[in-house]
Amino acid sequence: MTASPLDARELADRTAGLLDGVRARRPRVHAITNAAAQVFTANLLLAAGAIPSLTVSPEEAPAFAGRADALVVNLGTLDSERRGAIPWAVAAARQAGKPWLLDPVFVDASPPRLALARLCLAGRPAVLRCNGAEFAALAEREASPENAGRFAAEQGIVVALTGPVDWIADGARTVGIRNGHPLMTRVTAMGCAATALLAAFAALEPDPLVAAAAGLLAVGVAGEIAGERAAGPGSFQPAFLDALDALDRAALADRARLA
Amino acid sequence: MTASPLDARELADRTAGLLDGVRARRPRVHAITNAAAQVFTANLLLAAGAIPSLTVSPEEAPAFAGRADALVVNLGTLDSERRGAIPWAVAAARQAGKPWLLDPVFVDASPPRLALARLCLAGRPAVLRCNGAEFAALAEREASPENAGRFAAEQGIVVALTGPVDWIADGARTVGIRNGHPLMTRVTAMGCAATALLAAFAALEPDPLVAAAAGLLAVGVAGEIAGERAAGPGSFQPAFLDALDALDRAALADRARLA
Amino acid sequence: MTASPLDARELADRTAGLLDGVRARRPRVHAITNAAAQVFTANLLLAAGAIPSLTVSPEEAPAFAGRADALVVNLGTLDSERRGAIPWAVAAARQAGKPWLLDPVFVDASPPRLALARLCLAGRPAVLRCNGAEFAALAEREASPENAGRFAAEQGIVVALTGPVDWIADGARTVGIRNGHPLMTRVTAMGCAATALLAAFAALEPDPLVAAAAGLLAVGVAGEIAGERAAGPGSFQPAFLDALDALDRAALADRARLA
Repeated sequence: MTASPLDARELADRTAGLLDGVRARRPRVHAITNAAAQVFTANLLLAAGAIPSLTVSPEEAPAFAGRADALVVNLGTLDSERRGAIPWAVAAARQAGKPWLLDPVFVDASPPRLALARLCLAGRPAVLRCNGAEFAALAEREASPENAGRFAAEQGIVVALTGPVDWIADGARTVGIRNGHPLMTRVTAMGCAATALLAAFAALEPDPLVAAAAGLLAVGVAGEIAGERAAGPGSFQPAFLDALDALDRAALADRARLA
Repeated sequence: MTASPLDARELADRTAGLLDGVRARRPRVHAITNAAAQVFTANLLLAAGAIPSLTVSPEEAPAFAGRADALVVNLGTLDSERRGAIPWAVAAARQAGKPWLLDPVFVDASPPRLALARLCLAGRPAVLRCNGAEFAALAEREASPENAGRFAAEQGIVVALTGPVDWIADGARTVGIRNGHPLMTRVTAMGCAATALLAAFAALEPDPLVAAAAGLLAVGVAGEIAGERAAGPGSFQPAFLDALDALDRAALADRARLA
Repeated sequence: MTASPLDARELADRTAGLLDGVRARRPRVHAITNAAAQVFTANLLLAAGAIPSLTVSPEEAPAFAGRADALVVNLGTLDSERRGAIPWAVAAARQAGKPWLLDPVFVDASPPRLALARLCLAGRPAVLRCNGAEFAALAEREASPENAGRFAAEQGIVVALTGPVDWIADGARTVGIRNGHPLMTRVTAMGCAATALLAAFAALEPDPLVAAAAGLLAVGVAGEIAGERAAGPGSFQPAFLDALDALDRAALADRARLA
C-alpha cells in the first residue's frame, strides 16, 4: 500500500476548508437515491449547507442533474423510473462537466442490480462509495485497502471503501480514516447520505480523492460527536445533523485519526 | 397594495379556532406529494390533529381524494405514477366539492414540470403555495406582494408566496406574516408540509385567504418556538412537531407579527 | 373467547428471548411497504437488531425476499411497481420456506386495494396485522377479538388486530395486550413498522401467534417508555427507537399487561 498522501492535520484542514466552501457557495447536489435515503440525504445536504434535489423521473432528472454541481447515483430501491433516469442523468452531468458519484447499495443481493452497477462503472464515476460486501461483489475480489487501490486504478476512479476503517484510494494514493461511531450502522441510509456529502465536496474540490477523504472525515467526526450525545439510534440521527451543522476546524483537528 | 383584511390579533384568533377545529373534527387530507416530503407531511398533519393519506397511484388516488376533506398536489419528484394520478385526483376533489391546493416545487428547474404546473393552475386550486423562484417561473413576473395579488386575481385563486415574509393575496386582500425561523429553511420539505396544514385548515374554513394565512401563521409560530429550543437542524424537526402539537391561542396571540 | 395461552410473565419472557435472538442472529427482513413507512420501518428493524431491505421493484424484490428470513407486504401507496412485485416476492418467500406477513393499510378506503388484499390473503400470510377498520373491510364483520379468532380459523392464519387493546388470535388461542401510549397514533407508520418487528420475530419463532404477540408487546412497552419521555409527537419517534434499542427483560416483565 502506498503511504497516505495527507496526514491527519492536513486532512482536517482541507475538510474544514471544504465545509466553509459548501456553506458559502451552497452547491446543488442532485441525488437519484433510494426511497429509504431520500429524506436523510436531503437533510444531510441542507445541514451541510448544500442544496438538494431528488427527482428520479427520466423526464426530469437530466434537467436537474445538468444544472446541479454534482450528481449522486445510488442503486437502492431500483425501480423502472430510477432505471430509466440514471443513464440520462449521468450523461447530463458529464456533458456539463460535473462530477458524479456511484453508491451501489446491496449490489451483492441482486444479480440484475450488479449488472447495472457494472454498466454504471463504465460511465466513470469520480468516486465509487461502497461497503465491503458491495465491493467484493462488484470488484470480484476481497475487500481490502490494497484491492480498493487496484480496482480504482483499473477503473480510473476513486474507491471509497467504508467500514470500521474507511479506505479511500485512487491507485496511487491511499487514505485510511478511523473516525466514526457504532450507532452509525444502526440508522438507515447513513452511508447513502454520506455519499451525498462527498458529492457536495466534489462539487468544489477538483481532486476526488481529497473530496472523498474529507467527506468521510466530516461524516465520521460528526458521527462521533453525535454518538457521544445520543441515547440510542433514535436520538442519534437528529444529533448527527446538529453535529454536522456545527462541525468546525477545531473539532476536526482534535478528532481526526488516520490509519 | 390593499390593506390587510385582518390584524394580528384577529388572525391569531382565527388560527387558534382552526387548530381547535382540526383537533376536534380530524379532517382527512390526501397529499400527492414528493418522496422527500411524504413522511414529514404525514407527521405534520398528525401533529395538527388531521388524518393524512398519501397514495400516488392513478388507480387509487381518486378514491382517496374523493373521500378526503382537502387535497394537496405537490409537483416534486414527479414520476409517471404521480403524473397519472394528479388530474384524476383533482377531478375527484372538485366533484366532491372539496378544496385542493397546489405546491409547484422546483417548477423553475424543469421545463416539463412548469408546463404541467400551468395545466394544474387551469384546474383552479383554492390556494397556490410557492416560493419566490417558483412564483417567478410560473407567473412570469417578479415575486412581490403586488404581483402575487395580480396573479391571484387573474387566476381566480389565492396565492401564498412564502419567504422571509409570507404574503397571502387574493387580488382584493393581502396579508403579510413575519413569523418563522431560519432553521425552517435547513430541513427538507418544510414548505411542502406547510401546504398540507393549509389544506387541513381549508377543509374547515370556506375563505381560502383566511385558511392560508392562518396555516402559515401556525407554521411560522411553531417554527419560532422550535427554533428557540433546537440545537440545530436535526433537533429542529422533532421540536417543530412538538410545538405544533402544543400550539395554543396564547402563543399565537403573543407572537403573531403581520407585515 | 378462548383463554389466553400465555400469562403476562410468560409473554414478557418469550419477548425478551426473541429480542435477544434478533440482536444475536440479525435476521434479514425484506419489506415491501408504503412510502411513508419505509424509513421508519428500516430504522425500527435496525434499532431491534435486524437487517432491513426495502426494494419494491418486480425485477429485484423476489431476490431480496428469497434471501431474507421474513417478508412484510404492506399495501400502502400501492403503485404499479409494488403491485408487480408483491406476488413474486410472496412466491419467493414461500419457496424459501420463510414466513410472510400482510399489512392491508387503508384497505377500507380503496376498492381495488381491498380486492388485492383478498388475493394476498389467499397466499396465506403467517400473520395479518390490521386495525379495526381494515379488519372490518377485509373480513366483512365487526372488529372484535371473537371475530378475529373466527377469521383466523377460516383463513388458516394468525390475526393481529391492533387498537387500544391488541388482540392476537389463531382460532384456538387469543392473547390481548393492553400496553401502548396515545402518542403511537400521532406519528405515521407506527403500525406498519410494528408489523416489521413481528416479521423479525417470526423469522426466529416458529409459532406465529407467539411471534405476533411478542412483537406487539415489545412495541407497546417501547411506546409506553417513549411516551413518558417525549414532549410530543415529534420527540416521540426518536424516543421510541431509543427505547426499543434498550428494551430488556426487566422492563417487559414490569410493564406487560394482558387483557
